[in-house]
Amino acid sequence: MRRALALAVTPGVPLGPNPRVGCVLLAPDGTTIAEGFHRGAGTPHAEAAALAEAGDAARGATAVVTLEPCNHTGRTGPCSEALVAAGVRRVVFAQPDANPVAVGGAGRLREAGVEVVGGEQVEDAQAINRAWTFAIVHRRPFVTWKFATTLDGRSAAADGTSRWVSSRAARLDTHRLRGLCDTMLVGTGTVEVDDPELTVRDEVDEPVAIQPLRAVMGLRDLDPGRRILDARAETVHLRTRDPEEALARLHGLGRQHVFLEGGPTLARAFLAAGLVDEVVTYVAPMLLGAGRNAVADLGIATIADALHLHVSDVAVLQGHDGEDTNVRLTMRPPIPQRRSA
Amino acid sequence: MRRALALAVTPGVPLGPNPRVGCVLLAPDGTTIAEGFHRGAGTPHAEAAALAEAGDAARGATAVVTLEPCNHTGRTGPCSEALVAAGVRRVVFAQPDANPVAVGGAGRLREAGVEVVGGEQVEDAQAINRAWTFAIVHRRPFVTWKFATTLDGRSAAADGTSRWVSSRAARLDTHRLRGLCDTMLVGTGTVEVDDPELTVRDEVDEPVAIQPLRAVMGLRDLDPGRRILDARAETVHLRTRDPEEALARLHGLGRQHVFLEGGPTLARAFLAAGLVDEVVTYVAPMLLGAGRNAVADLGIATIADALHLHVSDVAVLQGHDGEDTNVRLTMRPPIPQRRSA
Repeated sequence: MRRALALAVTPGVPLGPNPRVGCVLLAPDGTTIAEGFHRGAGTPHAEAAALAEAGDAARGATAVVTLEPCNHTGRTGPCSEALVAAGVRRVVFAQPDANPVAVGGAGRLREAGVEVVGGEQVEDAQAINRAWTFAIVHRRPFVTWKFATTLDGRSAAADGTSRWVSSRAARLDTHRLRGLCDTMLVGTGTVEVDDPELTVRDEVDEPVAIQPLRAVMGLRDLDPGRRILDARAETVHLRTRDPEEALARLHGLGRQHVFLEGGPTLARAFLAAGLVDEVVTYVAPMLLGAGRNAVADLGIATIADALHLHVSDVAVLQGHDGEDTNVRLTMRPPIPQRRSA
Repeated sequence: MRRALALAVTPGVPLGPNPRVGCVLLAPDGTTIAEGFHRGAGTPHAEAAALAEAGDAARGATAVVTLEPCNHTGRTGPCSEALVAAGVRRVVFAQPDANPVAVGGAGRLREAGVEVVGGEQVEDAQAINRAWTFAIVHRRPFVTWKFATTLDGRSAAADGTSRWVSSRAARLDTHRLRGLCDTMLVGTGTVEVDDPELTVRDEVDEPVAIQPLRAVMGLRDLDPGRRILDARAETVHLRTRDPEEALARLHGLGRQHVFLEGGPTLARAFLAAGLVDEVVTYVAPMLLGAGRNAVADLGIATIADALHLHVSDVAVLQGHDGEDTNVRLTMRPPIPQRRSA
């Protein structure tokens, strides 16, 4: 299973609507016959890739796979049938398939006389496909809200200047996190004021090959000269101010992980709706004493109503060449996660 | 020298006006003859303690000492003379004595024909007596400004409630840091509003045996019923609003390390005067969105004028029993440190 999990996270696979899956076919004596992993939507599933490599050698083999084999015909046929047809004798899988249209593979295999064991290293497998699993269970994308702040809670100085609150290391880290999502979301206000390009850029400030979707939310029309509408990546304008509606639209577009970067007003709307699943904050060791607040008024009047976040990770982003050392906190809100209706 | 440094930091020595010093006497064959360390003002210096233990065996020995032997008669006689009288042949020391009234020990020893080597592990030795060294060089106490903040820069909610922004672990850590200082400083405003006891308390919330001085700064009279005037520790009222004057007064009282805990207005005055030497910030993973700012308006209008702090340490204070995990940042301002006139 460890090898199958490693195959699942083979670098270079584009983030798409499909889960990342790895598969290893073992002979009865435990030697590896073939390996496979899923390379993205429209390409063979991990099991199919391994079976194709194995050919007749799959007869009597054990298939070790990170996700329960699917039981439906999408752009490729059901893996459960392919495993049965190839004569596989035993299937060991990690994560049960959460996708309602694909579920049932284990049952189909058992009916066909295949021995099936599920749940092995299930947490490791789920971590690989966290957003995919979340999106299927909650019927909406997972939302990561990112904001940067000075030590004293400011995102810009009194005159509006904010270049740079975050250090270079923090900005590079933000691009890395953007690249782990399939959608970046800002409001029309941010597009108006900051005119962000909203692309994932590498260490030499070049856009990377595979870009997440750029989503803009709000009722205002977008000025066609805005950088977010350039050809560097796809852009969608969600003409709504309702976070739930925006996420439903993105879910409909097959989106599973939204990186929320629009200013405090947009973040407040998502917080109020209970639609923030993760908070990433970059703290810069800088004092401004005045200026734009990093977080909007949340209607909290007394300390007992403060929004407490659960810290899951703290990272020190060391400064180089005189740059500030920034601290990144990764947190979970305690709000029960909401499904879309 | 490593052993001498360990002796210097022997636990249980009260923080006082004197530096912490360790001394080891070695025979010509390298075996240890005697050890000594300074136990606080009025007790023998480390060298004297070691010489007393050694008796005649000190003749021809090497003295390894963390601080240059003193050359003046205070409450005890000069160590340089004592070493010469005991027949010590060689002296190896770490930190040169910065105290203008005590300096000159190395020269005196050389005159008397003793071989002298200085500067060994000087940084380790200086770190042990950081505040003492600072106070002598800058003729004022070292100032540590501590503040706690939510992720969004608030120290209290909109209705003024603030119990608790910091976690229990952060509060315990604050008491530990208070105990490493010899003076805690607040403004009359904080005494008025918060009525703090301002003592160092242990894990079971009992005051520890040795308490730092409690200093209150400002022109307002203190209500005699305030807790800061109770019998738990000494208290001094500095009737000035000028940080420089307050520090000069505390320096006159032999104080070397001030822990600045009074609200944002007091901190602003010290920052503006360039009289903050270290900043310790506890960040709570909590959002308030409104309320009292942790840091006052500093008159900074644009991002280029932001006060950048240099991070020297980041510590994660793990939350237990559902408490928040807090993050402690220890920082240095870039301001050139000022001497008192």
